[in-house]
Amino acid sequence: PSARGMQTVTLIPGDGIGPEISGAVVKIFEAAQAPIQWEERNVTAIKGPGGRWMIPPEAKESMDRSKIGLKGPLKTPIAAGHPSMNLLLRKTFDLYANVRPCVSIEGYKTPYTNVDLVTIRENTEGEYSGIEHVIVDGVVQSIKLITEEASRRIAEYAFEYARNNQRTSVTAVHKANIMRMSDGLFLKQCREVAEKFKDVKFTEMYLDTVCLNMVQDPTQFDVLVMPNLYGDILSDLCAGLIGGLGVTPSGNIGANGVAIFESVHGTAPDIAGLDLANPTALLLSGVMMLRHMGLHSHGKKIEAACFDTIREKKVLTKDLGGNSKCSEFTAEICRRIQDMD
Amino acid sequence: PSARGMQTVTLIPGDGIGPEISGAVVKIFEAAQAPIQWEERNVTAIKGPGGRWMIPPEAKESMDRSKIGLKGPLKTPIAAGHPSMNLLLRKTFDLYANVRPCVSIEGYKTPYTNVDLVTIRENTEGEYSGIEHVIVDGVVQSIKLITEEASRRIAEYAFEYARNNQRTSVTAVHKANIMRMSDGLFLKQCREVAEKFKDVKFTEMYLDTVCLNMVQDPTQFDVLVMPNLYGDILSDLCAGLIGGLGVTPSGNIGANGVAIFESVHGTAPDIAGLDLANPTALLLSGVMMLRHMGLHSHGKKIEAACFDTIREKKVLTKDLGGNSKCSEFTAEICRRIQDMD
Ligand SMILES: CC(C)[C@H](C(=O)O)[C@@H](O)C(=O)O
Ligand SMILES: CC(C)[C@H](C(=O)O)[C@@H](O)C(=O)O
Repeated sequence: PSARGMQTVTLIPGDGIGPEISGAVVKIFEAAQAPIQWEERNVTAIKGPGGRWMIPPEAKESMDRSKIGLKGPLKTPIAAGHPSMNLLLRKTFDLYANVRPCVSIEGYKTPYTNVDLVTIRENTEGEYSGIEHVIVDGVVQSIKLITEEASRRIAEYAFEYARNNQRTSVTAVHKANIMRMSDGLFLKQCREVAEKFKDVKFTEMYLDTVCLNMVQDPTQFDVLVMPNLYGDILSDLCAGLIGGLGVTPSGNIGANGVAIFESVHGTAPDIAGLDLANPTALLLSGVMMLRHMGLHSHGKKIEAACFDTIREKKVLTKDLGGNSKCSEFTAEICRRIQDMD
Repeated sequence: PSARGMQTVTLIPGDGIGPEISGAVVKIFEAAQAPIQWEERNVTAIKGPGGRWMIPPEAKESMDRSKIGLKGPLKTPIAAGHPSMNLLLRKTFDLYANVRPCVSIEGYKTPYTNVDLVTIRENTEGEYSGIEHVIVDGVVQSIKLITEEASRRIAEYAFEYARNNQRTSVTAVHKANIMRMSDGLFLKQCREVAEKFKDVKFTEMYLDTVCLNMVQDPTQFDVLVMPNLYGDILSDLCAGLIGGLGVTPSGNIGANGVAIFESVHGTAPDIAGLDLANPTALLLSGVMMLRHMGLHSHGKKIEAACFDTIREKKVLTKDLGGNSKCSEFTAEICRRIQDMD
């Protein structure tokens, strides 16, 4: 916290439409008088000593100090040979919980209504271990690594989250019928932690069954907790139910308050710089961030202004079904915030 | 083929509602005068020499002769300590392609219309390798095994399928951005095979993106091909779009015409023996089987009678929204078949 009660946040605008939508968020936060001091940093792949990929020291240093980041989309060219910067950020700061609330947005029509669930994804291991081998020519193995420690940590996070957010149930998602040892270990931790949270209902469900039930009736789910890859899949599926990645916020949470909130859509290079992008996902990620920082009233105000704008349908970006520019959508949200005071 | 031009099919009625729905299918096939000689066999887990789990020799022997099986649900108690019998059957007969057409059913309302796609799942390796280890206490690894041979085989199957079924595109589903070597190998085979099928459009898509796009607009997909676990997930998701496992057929295809067609729903022990079960999934699997055997006109007749019955909504089982018993639904389909002649 700085002299004037401001808290520093590392802003990683990102690539493509990143700078535009970050700019929009900064404007809206200003309108809401959120006590935030932005520290802008670029994140590109840097080759460190020993040939290891790392994030630029200036970004690392800022995050180490601020502990909180807000991040736009980063391009991840497979051809470049370096790992996804999104993953590297999660790894660098040990952001072990990937949290994605999926809530139906009034006025934004999809085949589903009343969706209100949260996917909580283990963010550090599993199928994302990065360990792969060629056994013999034409035979490759990838290793899925599950540890008791990381499983217990994410299970505890999920139950704490449920309790702290007035949610009533946690579903552990797994394929322990197939991966008996690895998913079995994950499931065992969930079961044990569930014992300590008697106020939260606990259920277990196969991943395939969750997917099937999810598209048939998503309202039956509340908090879902799962290993890395399953979370990757399920969080995108759920985002699809409420309108896609353009309206879905996301947070990566670590220990001791460290966290990076991010929009998980792409960089949309085709519309970059044209003032056409939709800043909603990054804005709502910012709202998650404000709540994480204890700035609830600012979060509430911004969220309400955003949802009101979408519900009214008068000033919307193209992807939301409107004709307005990013700057117009942003101005409309700012206006509503100012009207609230 | 027997003396009177009959072809033998191994019928594995299965557990729970299995016998009822198998009985229904046998009746309907009779009404359609399908030239099929059923050979009924039970499948339960047997411990063979060396402690290996195997299917009963009578079932194996029958399948070896008939080459074609139709199978109801099998219970798979994890506690029993043996692998899923469904998996053991796939393995025993090297049924490398799991094929699940998902087509919207007229009159059976879901949030989606005009779904018409097929998931083709590699059925023998990947995450289902069954290789797992404890590294140290609290650290477990599961091995995902991808081979060039199995990947090439399933890719070829998918493109052949597309060509033979007047389908225009194949999408390879992968996470080669994360599992660069294993999914990378799978993808490479798909790309190479695509080169040989210039008449079929080829695209690649990340699994998470497929899930997201699938729930937003499934009509954009046609044939999808993917490794084992992704197929497990995606086939259930797609089944959900058109009404669930109760109406979705499935086939497991091997080399030289060997195949087992199965309903992929559970054994529903709560309603077993009560004449309440819905035989549609097994019946439509039987229709897939008839087509596989070249008995197209019989397949067409049965399928039409089944879909007409569902569309008319007069005689439906409970799960389909009606009040009729399994036997009444079955009789209605038979009546319609007889009326066609
Ligand atoms: C960018 C990509 C590596 C990442 C993932 O696979 O986890 C993305 O899909 C996500 O969900 O954040
Ligand atoms: C029964 C189970 C082992 C199986 C699987 O996981 O493959 C099932 O879900 C399926 O899709 O056929």
